[in-house]
Amino acid sequence: MTSRGSMILSAFFFNPQGDHRVAWRHPDAPGAEVLDLAYYRRLVETAERARIDVLFVADEVAIWDQLPSGIAHYANVRLEMFTLLAALSAVSSEIGLIGTASTTYNEPFHIARKFASLDFLSHGRSAWNIVTSAMDEEALNFGRDHQLEHATRYQRAHESVEVVKALWDSWEDGALRIDKDSGFFADPEKVHHLDHQGDFFKVRGPLNLPRPPQGHPVLVQAGSSGDGKDLAARHADIHFAIFRSLEEGRRYRSDMNERLARNGRAPGDLKILPGLQPIVADSAAEAAEKAEALKDLLLDRVAVDLLSYWTRTDLSAYPIDGPLPELPGEEGFASGHTKLGLIRDSARREGLSIRELGRKMANTGSVATVAGTAGDVADRLEEWFSAGVADGFNLMFPLLPEGLDRFAAEVVPELQRRGVFHQEYGQGTLRDRLGLKRPANRFADRPGSSRA
Amino acid sequence: MTSRGSMILSAFFFNPQGDHRVAWRHPDAPGAEVLDLAYYRRLVETAERARIDVLFVADEVAIWDQLPSGIAHYANVRLEMFTLLAALSAVSSEIGLIGTASTTYNEPFHIARKFASLDFLSHGRSAWNIVTSAMDEEALNFGRDHQLEHATRYQRAHESVEVVKALWDSWEDGALRIDKDSGFFADPEKVHHLDHQGDFFKVRGPLNLPRPPQGHPVLVQAGSSGDGKDLAARHADIHFAIFRSLEEGRRYRSDMNERLARNGRAPGDLKILPGLQPIVADSAAEAAEKAEALKDLLLDRVAVDLLSYWTRTDLSAYPIDGPLPELPGEEGFASGHTKLGLIRDSARREGLSIRELGRKMANTGSVATVAGTAGDVADRLEEWFSAGVADGFNLMFPLLPEGLDRFAAEVVPELQRRGVFHQEYGQGTLRDRLGLKRPANRFADRPGSSRA
Repeated sequence: MTSRGSMILSAFFFNPQGDHRVAWRHPDAPGAEVLDLAYYRRLVETAERARIDVLFVADEVAIWDQLPSGIAHYANVRLEMFTLLAALSAVSSEIGLIGTASTTYNEPFHIARKFASLDFLSHGRSAWNIVTSAMDEEALNFGRDHQLEHATRYQRAHESVEVVKALWDSWEDGALRIDKDSGFFADPEKVHHLDHQGDFFKVRGPLNLPRPPQGHPVLVQAGSSGDGKDLAARHADIHFAIFRSLEEGRRYRSDMNERLARNGRAPGDLKILPGLQPIVADSAAEAAEKAEALKDLLLDRVAVDLLSYWTRTDLSAYPIDGPLPELPGEEGFASGHTKLGLIRDSARREGLSIRELGRKMANTGSVATVAGTAGDVADRLEEWFSAGVADGFNLMFPLLPEGLDRFAAEVVPELQRRGVFHQEYGQGTLRDRLGLKRPANRFADRPGSSRA
Repeated sequence: MTSRGSMILSAFFFNPQGDHRVAWRHPDAPGAEVLDLAYYRRLVETAERARIDVLFVADEVAIWDQLPSGIAHYANVRLEMFTLLAALSAVSSEIGLIGTASTTYNEPFHIARKFASLDFLSHGRSAWNIVTSAMDEEALNFGRDHQLEHATRYQRAHESVEVVKALWDSWEDGALRIDKDSGFFADPEKVHHLDHQGDFFKVRGPLNLPRPPQGHPVLVQAGSSGDGKDLAARHADIHFAIFRSLEEGRRYRSDMNERLARNGRAPGDLKILPGLQPIVADSAAEAAEKAEALKDLLLDRVAVDLLSYWTRTDLSAYPIDGPLPELPGEEGFASGHTKLGLIRDSARREGLSIRELGRKMANTGSVATVAGTAGDVADRLEEWFSAGVADGFNLMFPLLPEGLDRFAAEVVPELQRRGVFHQEYGQGTLRDRLGLKRPANRFADRPGSSRA
């Protein structure tokens, strides 16, 4: 292993057919078996054999149907994250389990309890990907007419994370006694009320579970807006980033280090994992063909609808081979700021039509792609890792299970041979393995703190 | 098998150490392993070998600590229901999975989605036990100062169940096409908005999962108040009841049949399973000894605190060997009406002191106990089943895993020999096995219904 140790590899599953928007149409894509545990079990077994560190299951609480092609053409059904990860915890033994849960549509007590429970079930492998939810469709399923304003969502997220962490601390380590002779199940001096009362939540606590094995399940954050980065810099252990070059990565890392410093944290306290779409083939030409074959699956209608969605502008009213109309400004734009900026820049720089831009954005999104031989892909990972811009990678396989299978069979051994990826899982909890500290308990050794 | 077919057996796990309040103090009770999946996995394997129909995991969203002995002496930590049942779905293949989720503290979208996801993961074995939550401690974890008033909780529950069922219907059977050639993932004509707007919820839908394998996961209801029985009569497939004699059971059944008729349902549409605490030993005398040994584990302080809690009256201020003070009336009493009535009756009839009544109620609760040989226990089950007052039983083993182990090894074979319990699991989903109809879809074949 090099002096940088091992990179961290995360296998990302949002669309279970793969990260490409219409991967589901590919001949090798799974069909209705995406609703069956057996499909995911095989993916996880492959990932564990390859010693991949974590599995990352993203989630939403609505289908994307604001625009007409949503339901018809887009594979937006998915198993619910907590139930899927809990089932997978029972058929895996090593891999970390990252799940997305929204602070906007979940009470902190439920978030704290379910991740704590998953942490017990998995012997310390659970991780929460904190999201604030950016779809109006989600708001409509939870009593609102539209989503909360961007800044409000992040204020709520900060408070939610604080409450969740406090609930995980509400039982000190050692609070559980289970002393059958004396009749003391718990030490009441070590179990604490929160008595939290904030702008968004009022929560007494304590949790009805002891402190989870990791103290706090690993905290993950994936938004690249300024608010998102600040949330990561304050709370997260892992940050999923989007950058597409070494230079961009250096600026990103330096920006994050400044944000960390403002929160009294060191650069090593936050692992930065850029998203990467790997396409592995026997030659560079064959890899390019594979990428093109996926792009061909995209219906124009879906491409235009996606672009309309990201820009909150109905582009079906404009000529498909004409230019983008004026886009809304960032101010007051309640949805993904990062994506809007990328689209604006790309339209300006490359002069693409709506069809071209839609196909481009829908096909490659904002995430870096590396297509080539296993050696080519390993080169990119090693370069970014060794340069210190990436602590690891969030692998967004365009097509599943093929993408994972091939990466595990060819790229992982190459990375291991080069000494930049571990041969075996480390000991202990997910935190231990990732080199993350077990957090101190806010209630421990604080005389006079409110006791339950 | 007799003409009544097979009784339905449910294995109840609320306290994972057993249903007796302080079972955790028993020398054979599990310790910290109640936080480990391996413990539950062994219970489920035993239950499946015995062909027990369903596993019933109750849950709460707070610890019982309103009174001082709660945290110290009471085993009130438990794994969260959805994560536990999902994990168990992966290590079992036949048994039904009933989980308790509160309509007061969960959004219908989350309830619908998680039970649907569990239904897919388990191939049609999921069931929702609908509760409204009666603890003030729970309210305090979710932004309230105290729980909602009893009638309001049940109004909310009715609306919640309606929304959840509509979400399960929002994808018609056959809506999922996954036609790779045409690019149609779903048939938009068969996916529907709810556009629900009621007193408590506003939910657009559709769900981001197709209709679950059972159409609707099995609906279960367990409260014995008038409001609870009405909820069961209107919506439930299974009703967990509390009665302690054949005569009481006959009245109960007849009352439920009337309530069913008022909802246009037949007696066979609702399976009634009374709770039963079985204690099995080699002789009646030994069984009585086992029951006494559990009672001896109870601390006086816990007994009095429990009685205080159920009556919402601080009894620690009264002489422990004196009589009960005047109890609050049912009017405006926001907590379990049934329990309050039982306590009042028992105090009046038997003239017990606070200590005696506390120990009695805490030890046996309101549920029927049958202690004796396997034959004695089978006699009781056969009698109630054959008389038609019970379609089966909710087995509330006082001590786990011992109670389940012994019941599976001795009582089940006896019931099978007598032809009142199946030798093998039936085919199909949980609904199929329990003789419950797959519900019609409210959106199917209704031209002009709102489409997503």
